[in-house]
Amino acid sequence: MTELQKTYMQMAINLSRSGMHSGNGGPFGCVIVKDGVIIGQGNNQVLSNNDPTAHAEVVAIREACKNLRTFQLEGCEIYTSCEPCPMCLGAIYWARPKQVFYANTRQQASEAGFDDDFIYHELPLPPQDRKIPMQHAPNDEALKVFSEWENFEDKKVY
Amino acid sequence: MTELQKTYMQMAINLSRSGMHSGNGGPFGCVIVKDGVIIGQGNNQVLSNNDPTAHAEVVAIREACKNLRTFQLEGCEIYTSCEPCPMCLGAIYWARPKQVFYANTRQQASEAGFDDDFIYHELPLPPQDRKIPMQHAPNDEALKVFSEWENFEDKKVY
Repeated sequence: MTELQKTYMQMAINLSRSGMHSGNGGPFGCVIVKDGVIIGQGNNQVLSNNDPTAHAEVVAIREACKNLRTFQLEGCEIYTSCEPCPMCLGAIYWARPKQVFYANTRQQASEAGFDDDFIYHELPLPPQDRKIPMQHAPNDEALKVFSEWENFEDKKVY
Repeated sequence: MTELQKTYMQMAINLSRSGMHSGNGGPFGCVIVKDGVIIGQGNNQVLSNNDPTAHAEVVAIREACKNLRTFQLEGCEIYTSCEPCPMCLGAIYWARPKQVFYANTRQQASEAGFDDDFIYHELPLPPQDRKIPMQHAPNDEALKVFSEWENFEDKKVY
C-alpha cells in the first residue's frame, strides 16, 4: 500500500473507533475512494438504526452510489477496517469496485464475538442443511416473472 | 407449505412482478411475517434508488426491523420469490429469522442474467484468488479497536 492508501485505511479505522464509542454499533469503519476523492464512508450503525444490514461497508457503498448517482462503483477502492462479512462481500460484488483493502480478519472478528466466520461456513451448505431452515418452494408463476424479465423491453442489467 | 404460507409467497411474487414493471429493478419480491402479520415487504429497487444493496430481502428486512424497533427478526418467516443471493443470505443470518421460503433458485436467477451463482462461487475462495482483488493489510491499531470493543462497557451484542 502507498502512504496515501495507508491514510485512507487509517480513516476507516478512525471511523470504526468513533462509531463504536458513539454507540452506533460494532467497531467497523469503511472509506470508498475514486480518483483520489473520498466518495463514501461509514461506520457500523446496526444498533443506532435498528438495522442489521447497516454494516460499515453497506453504509459506505450506499453513500458512494448516491454521490455518484449510479449503482456501480467502477474504478473505486474500498478501505475497510475488517474483512467484509458475507453480506458485505456480496454487496461489494454487486457494486463491482476495482479493489478492496481490509485490516482485521474474519477470524479476529470471530474472536471479538461476531458471526462473520460462522456465516462464511453456513453459506456454501445446501439450503436444507443450514442452521436457519430454508425451504425451496418451486412456483411456476415466480418462474414466469423471470421470463417476463428476459423479454422486458426496458430491461437494464445491473 | 400451508395455504396461508402459499398466499404470502404469492404476495412476494406479485411484488417481484410489479416492481420490475415499475422500473424499480430486477424481478424479485419479499414478504416478512410475524405471528400472522406482515411486518415488512419489498421489491428490488437497485435501479430506481441507485443502490446495489436494495435487493428485495434487504428492503423488507430493513422495513420489518424499523416496524419492530429491533435489529432482530426473532420468530419471523421470510417469503422470497427467489433464493437469496449471498448478500441477502448474509443479511438474513444477521437478522436471525425463524425460517425462509424461496421459489426460484440461484441457477434460475443465473439463467435470467443475474450474478447470484457467480458470487456464491467466489465467496468461499481465499481473498487473493477472487475476481475482485482483495488485499489483507494487517494493522495493529485496527486490532486495538477490537480490544476496546471487547472491554466496552456499553457493549450490546448483535
